[in-house]
Amino acid sequence: MPMKLYDFPPAPSPQRVRMFLNEKGLSPPVTQVDMAANEQLGEAYQSINPRGTVPALVLDDGTVLSEVVAIYRYLEAIQSEPPLLGSSPAEQALITEWDHRVEMELMIAIADTLRNGSKSFAHRALPGRLDVEQVPELVERGKLRIMAFLDILDQQLASNDYIAGDSFSAADITAYIAVGFCSWVKISIPESLANLSAWYEKISDRDSAKAMR
Amino acid sequence: MPMKLYDFPPAPSPQRVRMFLNEKGLSPPVTQVDMAANEQLGEAYQSINPRGTVPALVLDDGTVLSEVVAIYRYLEAIQSEPPLLGSSPAEQALITEWDHRVEMELMIAIADTLRNGSKSFAHRALPGRLDVEQVPELVERGKLRIMAFLDILDQQLASNDYIAGDSFSAADITAYIAVGFCSWVKISIPESLANLSAWYEKISDRDSAKAMR
Repeated sequence: MPMKLYDFPPAPSPQRVRMFLNEKGLSPPVTQVDMAANEQLGEAYQSINPRGTVPALVLDDGTVLSEVVAIYRYLEAIQSEPPLLGSSPAEQALITEWDHRVEMELMIAIADTLRNGSKSFAHRALPGRLDVEQVPELVERGKLRIMAFLDILDQQLASNDYIAGDSFSAADITAYIAVGFCSWVKISIPESLANLSAWYEKISDRDSAKAMR
Repeated sequence: MPMKLYDFPPAPSPQRVRMFLNEKGLSPPVTQVDMAANEQLGEAYQSINPRGTVPALVLDDGTVLSEVVAIYRYLEAIQSEPPLLGSSPAEQALITEWDHRVEMELMIAIADTLRNGSKSFAHRALPGRLDVEQVPELVERGKLRIMAFLDILDQQLASNDYIAGDSFSAADITAYIAVGFCSWVKISIPESLANLSAWYEKISDRDSAKAMR
């Protein structure tokens, strides 16, 4: 496999990539980057990914991909089976729509809550190289957004087997990792959201998820 | 054309879709939604797009797309020429990478600056239905992020003709609209960023951009 992955298994973005790879049956060589020790901001890693974010996928020609959605797109193009980004135009679009919404409305809300409230993220309220001070108001705002979006997912799953429709897709991977990431800010799926709970259990049962535990 | 677009020409997200359509030579029927009068939050529009965001593309089977990236993906699938989302796996991935970064690091930073500082967005610090109070600290943080990302774009354009490489792509559309959107928060391209200025002028000269003025 002419590519190399930089990984930190506890963090949500690398987890999205790992689960996608598991579904595709791909296992590129991996180098660990210890984000707990801020290794992603050290010179060695920044010479590979100057953004200072993890994961990064380095292609054989030296191209560096550092956005999960870009890594999804590359992996789907080189290994089309099973399709995780959709087949028909409407399917492709709906998977893109839901994957993006989960990232913008849930992932970011969780990160806001965590990074603006925890002492371990002092001056590090955003990922990457920029030093950004914490904004305590974002903690409560983040929780409000999380709860609102869990409701939206539950409604979506009332009439769909999976997040973007009838089939398992990358949107399920992103949502599964994001919903699990809620535990970092001490939020779990409310009992009233039965559709979301049942879906979460179903996804947890997939081999690609089990392989991550 | 079996689809219908809900549009509000002054706003940046609808502008991204408009320029993409112009590049593809597509012109679906359009309904205007007056966001200046909060029409996107009224019952009539919410029966079409319950999220209360504009744009929305309604497909012939009733499927509603409300994320720009999803609309890009759909339009590329039904009208492949000219390709705006890339051809080779690496090209597709790099366009996805840069389009996403521009949205996350520039579009959101501008929106944060605008929505948390302007009286016209009181209680409306985020798009969509959720009432969210303004957080004044996000105004300065937003400006810091905007300036940092304009630098990144300038560096990228030092060794690339276009945002994601050698060819014009959707990432240029998103970046062009985002850089123009900076004027809403009284920021223009610093004189020192010569690569970015030259690129901006080049994109402004495209027919797809001229048709929007």
